[in-house]
Amino acid sequence: MPALEWVNRPIPTIDASALDKAQVHQDQLTKPPGSLGTLEKIATRLAAMQDSNKPDLSNVHITIFAADHGIAEEGVSAFPQSVTVEMIRNFANGGAAINVLSQQINARLDIVNLGTIQPTSELANVISTPIAPGTANFSTQAAMGRLHLKQALEQGRAAIVRAMNSRARLFIGGEMGIANTTSAAALACALLNEDPLILAGPGTGLDSDGVKHKANVIAQALKFHCDYENQPLEALRLFGGFEIAALVGAYISAAQSKIPSLVDGFISSVAALCAVTIEPRVRDWLFFSHASAEPGHKRVLTALNAVPILDLGMRLGEGSGAATAVPLMRLACSLHNEMATFSSAQVTEQIN
Amino acid sequence: MPALEWVNRPIPTIDASALDKAQVHQDQLTKPPGSLGTLEKIATRLAAMQDSNKPDLSNVHITIFAADHGIAEEGVSAFPQSVTVEMIRNFANGGAAINVLSQQINARLDIVNLGTIQPTSELANVISTPIAPGTANFSTQAAMGRLHLKQALEQGRAAIVRAMNSRARLFIGGEMGIANTTSAAALACALLNEDPLILAGPGTGLDSDGVKHKANVIAQALKFHCDYENQPLEALRLFGGFEIAALVGAYISAAQSKIPSLVDGFISSVAALCAVTIEPRVRDWLFFSHASAEPGHKRVLTALNAVPILDLGMRLGEGSGAATAVPLMRLACSLHNEMATFSSAQVTEQIN
Repeated sequence: MPALEWVNRPIPTIDASALDKAQVHQDQLTKPPGSLGTLEKIATRLAAMQDSNKPDLSNVHITIFAADHGIAEEGVSAFPQSVTVEMIRNFANGGAAINVLSQQINARLDIVNLGTIQPTSELANVISTPIAPGTANFSTQAAMGRLHLKQALEQGRAAIVRAMNSRARLFIGGEMGIANTTSAAALACALLNEDPLILAGPGTGLDSDGVKHKANVIAQALKFHCDYENQPLEALRLFGGFEIAALVGAYISAAQSKIPSLVDGFISSVAALCAVTIEPRVRDWLFFSHASAEPGHKRVLTALNAVPILDLGMRLGEGSGAATAVPLMRLACSLHNEMATFSSAQVTEQIN
Repeated sequence: MPALEWVNRPIPTIDASALDKAQVHQDQLTKPPGSLGTLEKIATRLAAMQDSNKPDLSNVHITIFAADHGIAEEGVSAFPQSVTVEMIRNFANGGAAINVLSQQINARLDIVNLGTIQPTSELANVISTPIAPGTANFSTQAAMGRLHLKQALEQGRAAIVRAMNSRARLFIGGEMGIANTTSAAALACALLNEDPLILAGPGTGLDSDGVKHKANVIAQALKFHCDYENQPLEALRLFGGFEIAALVGAYISAAQSKIPSLVDGFISSVAALCAVTIEPRVRDWLFFSHASAEPGHKRVLTALNAVPILDLGMRLGEGSGAATAVPLMRLACSLHNEMATFSSAQVTEQIN
């Protein structure tokens, strides 16, 4: 494997005493202790991560990574492969869900094309850094070579450098790539030693026969590539996509840089699982935004010991579920920062 | 019962063809059909309710109704009764959770005192319309007389008149009143013919012995007042609170006025159940914001056939869970109104 020293750099721990201090503050606010539920946990975790009495999410940075997938040849998606580039064009023109959400939550949105069948170098709003015109078909060969894996991981790291330059307090990674639920499901199977029937789902809209075919394609590929057990980077190389590898690199790099990441749905969560398998301390820096309608997401969340903030039956990708959760995280911060305390408001505390 | 003709005025139906039209629009947006999950349902319902191609929630009106409860004498709350007035003062001074949330979501917030042990007439920011210094202890007498019930229902209606005058597109009712989970649980038991052990919970923080005592107080009161079966207004009079009756009046009046209401947690949902039992078509005009940590909420939501938007383990009341859901409902509107269509963006539609 070409040099990837940065992947193994240490990840800062989150100060337990900072978390305790934030909880002490929460318990002084004029409400029954614990009565803001998840909002309290979000605020106290962010306060500890940011080492601040006033957690702040004013500045959110979203990066969508897009790429094509050789496995699309196997007929595993409800949409034709041309849609990857068509959707990149839609992102560039501001018409996709993530554009609307980014604007509404006042987040910066970067669009990165890591390699599609047709190039998109002509689009001014797209960071075009093509690694190859899509991955190879992993049913008969590795999805990518070692150099391409390294490049994809580094594109994730580059996104975090951009996020830091724009002083982001939260990173959201999104993805677009026809057939990428197949890639993600295969990678999750490899990481968890799990049955493809558990992790393959309808994606953008396969019927039950389509899901069976998809699970079968994955099962055969898992047999064909047998040498990946306990080697998460190798599993990523064999089954992943450029955009999935970029998400892995981004989550690792963000944790190294003390930037919390808000993980989106199924594909992003598989990337998070891969990152955490490579370096378990990445987990401390992750928030999970929503439970996807994609059935395999539950298995991946369980493996990550993650309870997401929302459960809205979304299954779009693009970082859309994560963007939807941002206003709630901001409300959690505002409540933590602005509510009166029992003493300041002269409200009597609980009897017992 | 004193004249309450307005309660029985007809409630407009929601045009099914407007709902279909909104769904057709959703299916043209550049995403796999259905992939925005609950956000699609919110947007299409709102479009139909507002009879508009562009659902709009820019203007949200919150009213907190506060009152004291005679049943507090039975030791059913973790907080002393003085906290009702102390929290009204906190609302007036802007220090409570609902103040922070209202400001963040740019909603108008009215605070209405319907009757507390100590008056709050000196507070400039509070609409003070005291019916009585709290309800009577319903373990030995009706919580309120017929005239007081009428007045409380009318205060709910008055809140909707204020909401309409401020051109609200969504109404949120909140409540504050020490011991009001006991009142709400008793009312729900009466409406559903359900065991108090199912509907009594810790409220602001009772321990398990406290919850048992609360359930026992309710069970005895349900036996003491036996004549309320299939009489939701009479059940409300016997067991309710002024703020609960005001919420009932508000939900009915809002539906009559074609204003959707976003229901908060346990107490608000019991008021919604009472309103729907009085007039089933109120249900069409309700959204449910969150699943409360109060265990009885689940039973009430099931009776209302309601799946709330959020499940954050909140249990604060004040309309806080509802206010937290507003940004998501607004994102649902923005997605509906601003996303590109497959044809406008030249994106290929699903293969099948």
